[in-house]
Amino acid sequence: MQRYFLEKNLQGPNLILPKDIFHHAITVMRMRVGAKFEVVTPDEFVNIMEVTEIKGKVAKAKLVSKSRQTVEMPKQAVIVCGLSKGDKAEWIVQKGTEMGAAKFIFFQGDYSVAKWDQKKQKRKLERLYKIAQGAAEQSHRTQVPDVEFIAKVADLELPATALGLVAYEEEAKQGEKTMLMQTFENLRNKDALWAVFGPEGGLAPKEVETLLDKGFAKAGLGPRIMRAETAPLYFLASMSFYLELAHDLG
Amino acid sequence: MQRYFLEKNLQGPNLILPKDIFHHAITVMRMRVGAKFEVVTPDEFVNIMEVTEIKGKVAKAKLVSKSRQTVEMPKQAVIVCGLSKGDKAEWIVQKGTEMGAAKFIFFQGDYSVAKWDQKKQKRKLERLYKIAQGAAEQSHRTQVPDVEFIAKVADLELPATALGLVAYEEEAKQGEKTMLMQTFENLRNKDALWAVFGPEGGLAPKEVETLLDKGFAKAGLGPRIMRAETAPLYFLASMSFYLELAHDLG
Repeated sequence: MQRYFLEKNLQGPNLILPKDIFHHAITVMRMRVGAKFEVVTPDEFVNIMEVTEIKGKVAKAKLVSKSRQTVEMPKQAVIVCGLSKGDKAEWIVQKGTEMGAAKFIFFQGDYSVAKWDQKKQKRKLERLYKIAQGAAEQSHRTQVPDVEFIAKVADLELPATALGLVAYEEEAKQGEKTMLMQTFENLRNKDALWAVFGPEGGLAPKEVETLLDKGFAKAGLGPRIMRAETAPLYFLASMSFYLELAHDLG
Repeated sequence: MQRYFLEKNLQGPNLILPKDIFHHAITVMRMRVGAKFEVVTPDEFVNIMEVTEIKGKVAKAKLVSKSRQTVEMPKQAVIVCGLSKGDKAEWIVQKGTEMGAAKFIFFQGDYSVAKWDQKKQKRKLERLYKIAQGAAEQSHRTQVPDVEFIAKVADLELPATALGLVAYEEEAKQGEKTMLMQTFENLRNKDALWAVFGPEGGLAPKEVETLLDKGFAKAGLGPRIMRAETAPLYFLASMSFYLELAHDLG
């Protein structure tokens, strides 16, 4: 069933379709009276709605049933990525959203070739949020990940309630194998895991030092060297596997 | 260091650069006498070579040192994918190779929109193998994954030495959580895990039945619905995490 996100919780059983939902549901999808769709509200309820009336540019729907689903990771996964060339950011946001990321923070790495000036930032973030929203709808999530931008890793502040990792290629080459697993285990008393990934050129040693000072720990992601846009997905899938599929048995 | 794959093991310490390596190393990378590069041989040795002579279209290199690296997964991951539209196959092969896949098998799914006729098959497979080779070099692997095509899942034969999974969206929706982990554990006495993924439209129930008859087991890949090209990466990262990073601790 088609799924949409509402910015406000339902006030009662009846809903006048917001402009964007009207456009997609009635104009694009050609839904008629009696057609059903889902709206996900900030309270994380999935509400099954039925179209009850369509008059010109106004359509109404009524609540048929509501349910809560646990499709979000038990701990927040925050993906911090250096800017890479081309559409890699779009790509990381789309796939990362499907894999359960709670938030994306992009930064201008010392080795980043791509640059986002003030004007570009706004445009890019709007576009990336739209991509996150589309992917969240498509993957039936109940939350849309935030997308933010910071100028440099030095601006990163790791919350006390979160653990932090740096995916550092050197660690992988040196065969560091235990930190990722250990960090997943240590999440018990935390609510989020922030993972930092360099841009195509990698992280500068100075950037890694800065992150270590801020409480991030270096971790290897297996013996193979992955592209900048691949490593975050490896991390997210591993975290989902550990927390959502393997933990009871682990 | 630039890495190339040789189809034959080194015969002694000296090598006359094959055409493709000559083109990339000497013509494109402009290597000169004294320049070093790596060649990976079928015996899985990584050989450090040094250019010793360049005369016209002929270049020679000598072996400086050789080492064996364990960058391949301890068990083979075979990715079986229904054909999807656009460049999704290219994409799955590139990222899947970075994540350690041993082989890719594409098939014409009952719900596949894309079609590969005889002529297209050859061209596509050649192109996909080139992508696999490039990704294997870039991710410093010692093996290049094979890429094959079969007309339908009914043509799939699961070897006795392998376990088989079907990533079935319905299972994810129904909250199937244990099969993936259990299968990783059961790999102890096997040498490969074959995982089947539907095309964009998903697998037809009849295809799933066929696979179950062939010994494949249905498995959920977490609570979120992933796109056809995302699910194989979730699977590969989970397998790598379990076998290469978590197993000792698990």
